[in-house]
Amino acid sequence: MTKFNSLLTAVALASSVSMALAADALPTEAPAPADNPTTPAKVALGKMLYHDPRLSSTGTVSCASCHNVMLGGEDNRPNSMGVNGQTGGRSAPTVWNAAFNQVQFWDGRAESLEAQAAGPVTNPIEMGMKSWDEVVARLNSIEGYQKAFADAFGGNAISKDTATKAIAAYERTLITPNSPYDKYVTGEKSAMTEQQVRGMNKAVELGCTGCHSGPAFNGPGVFQKFPMHSNGMYLAKYHFNKDLGLADVTKKQGDEHLFKVPTLRNIALTAPYFHNGSVKTLDEAVKVMGKLQLDKDLSEQEIKDIVAFLNALTGEFPEQKMPILPPTAGMTFN
Amino acid sequence: MTKFNSLLTAVALASSVSMALAADALPTEAPAPADNPTTPAKVALGKMLYHDPRLSSTGTVSCASCHNVMLGGEDNRPNSMGVNGQTGGRSAPTVWNAAFNQVQFWDGRAESLEAQAAGPVTNPIEMGMKSWDEVVARLNSIEGYQKAFADAFGGNAISKDTATKAIAAYERTLITPNSPYDKYVTGEKSAMTEQQVRGMNKAVELGCTGCHSGPAFNGPGVFQKFPMHSNGMYLAKYHFNKDLGLADVTKKQGDEHLFKVPTLRNIALTAPYFHNGSVKTLDEAVKVMGKLQLDKDLSEQEIKDIVAFLNALTGEFPEQKMPILPPTAGMTFN
Repeated sequence: MTKFNSLLTAVALASSVSMALAADALPTEAPAPADNPTTPAKVALGKMLYHDPRLSSTGTVSCASCHNVMLGGEDNRPNSMGVNGQTGGRSAPTVWNAAFNQVQFWDGRAESLEAQAAGPVTNPIEMGMKSWDEVVARLNSIEGYQKAFADAFGGNAISKDTATKAIAAYERTLITPNSPYDKYVTGEKSAMTEQQVRGMNKAVELGCTGCHSGPAFNGPGVFQKFPMHSNGMYLAKYHFNKDLGLADVTKKQGDEHLFKVPTLRNIALTAPYFHNGSVKTLDEAVKVMGKLQLDKDLSEQEIKDIVAFLNALTGEFPEQKMPILPPTAGMTFN
Repeated sequence: MTKFNSLLTAVALASSVSMALAADALPTEAPAPADNPTTPAKVALGKMLYHDPRLSSTGTVSCASCHNVMLGGEDNRPNSMGVNGQTGGRSAPTVWNAAFNQVQFWDGRAESLEAQAAGPVTNPIEMGMKSWDEVVARLNSIEGYQKAFADAFGGNAISKDTATKAIAAYERTLITPNSPYDKYVTGEKSAMTEQQVRGMNKAVELGCTGCHSGPAFNGPGVFQKFPMHSNGMYLAKYHFNKDLGLADVTKKQGDEHLFKVPTLRNIALTAPYFHNGSVKTLDEAVKVMGKLQLDKDLSEQEIKDIVAFLNALTGEFPEQKMPILPPTAGMTFN
């Protein structure tokens, strides 16, 4: 078989199997819940809140600190750094395309972006506010926020409910379309390289798509056990078993080591990998996944091809204006 | 005298004394040094670098963390929080209009924005990089920066020199024109309230403008001793004398407690006040300045009027696009 024929075969194969990988390209709009339709005023307010470090006790940490939308939507750290330099045990998931997650947080304990947004603000090692009452009081002291909340929610006052709705509305706009993969599945077959197509086919053949399918490559299931297969070397090296995942929330033994299936979108930008950020490179992450989830030793070539494919999932990051945060006179932090 | 006449008199007075306060409104462009002319490519690169937390050891602190251009150009803290939650002894000066400072840092140890930009990156309690060599190596590993530096500096490689020039070029665009004061001095006499005009006149009469004059209200001199007059209560309360200012740099006794005269532009947004951020409100800051610099006990009314005037120095913050930071695969931080 000539090289040309080989390429044609690969493309033909890819055309048929790509339907297994993802039914569609990434949607350019995210669905919103019935009680929080997306509006420009909410998005504008949410963008301000998302970038406002005054939502943290020290005035130094905003949502954007750990979920940086000028980068890949997170912070490239094994674990994020909250107020006063504190760190936790999990790696910040990307906010880009989080609107397409069925649940939020690594342990899936939040069923919506709204519920997720309520968490970090009052987490003592993240944003460190004592309570949402304290957050609301602080926001109420800022005249510009009074106006922005009124614009977004009519007569409704500033509250935990409206603040988290606004943040979620903004997050629903954080979508990265037009990756090489998206172009490929919408007909532009030259958008992926031969190696990327080969990697895609390999991912399907191996069964990666059993969990990582759908437009955001994070379904159709919601949770998956990790690790599925035991491997002494990897567990000793990466300590995957220390974190009980969903069982930490439900206290059920059957939920031990269940984690939300994370999106593969933009994964080339979001090192380090896994719930504890213990794996530094995408090559190693693919190798580990092969062994621990599929019980397979992938060859170097297979790994390189799959990594090439994963690089085809890097989308286009929309231009955004910086929010001008409403000023307040005399607010200071320690 | 009727209220109307009183207002006219105040405006007339203000017209004559405003020349003493500031010869001109804030310029809308800042002069650049001969060896670093401002160009769009440099500004674009500088904006990326300014907002890139990968310029810090932990990947969590950018220039913007402490000099937040979505807010008043600083962080509203007595002292800023650098890597790993560390804090120093001085308050972050605003970056807005810093292009109009004759020297940079509270102790004036940097003669240009370029020289200033080199400092925090390798300060162990600020951005914590081991050396500029380490910074340059990190930037060199990011393909998008290779291109952005080439665009901005032609054949010149990524270096401390080019990185700090780009940051300075961006900072020269951070200007807040069209404050009520600027409108007032360019003929829109209704732009300041009667109280603001009264406060302006009082500031001139008291001698505040001896140090705080010129378009940025930070000259004509460069340094000033603070405190000028001793006051046991204030020194006990605010510990102003702990910091030797310029003498920390020069080791000369004659330079003790000399500080750069800070701009008054946007001062209503940059609480807390003074080199050590020990004073929380603008009212108290004005009172302290009256006592320690002018040896005068200002009345409550005088303080309120001057504070009203200082609020007229809040300018318009230009809209900015968020930089999309060039991605790098596999870069992680601890």
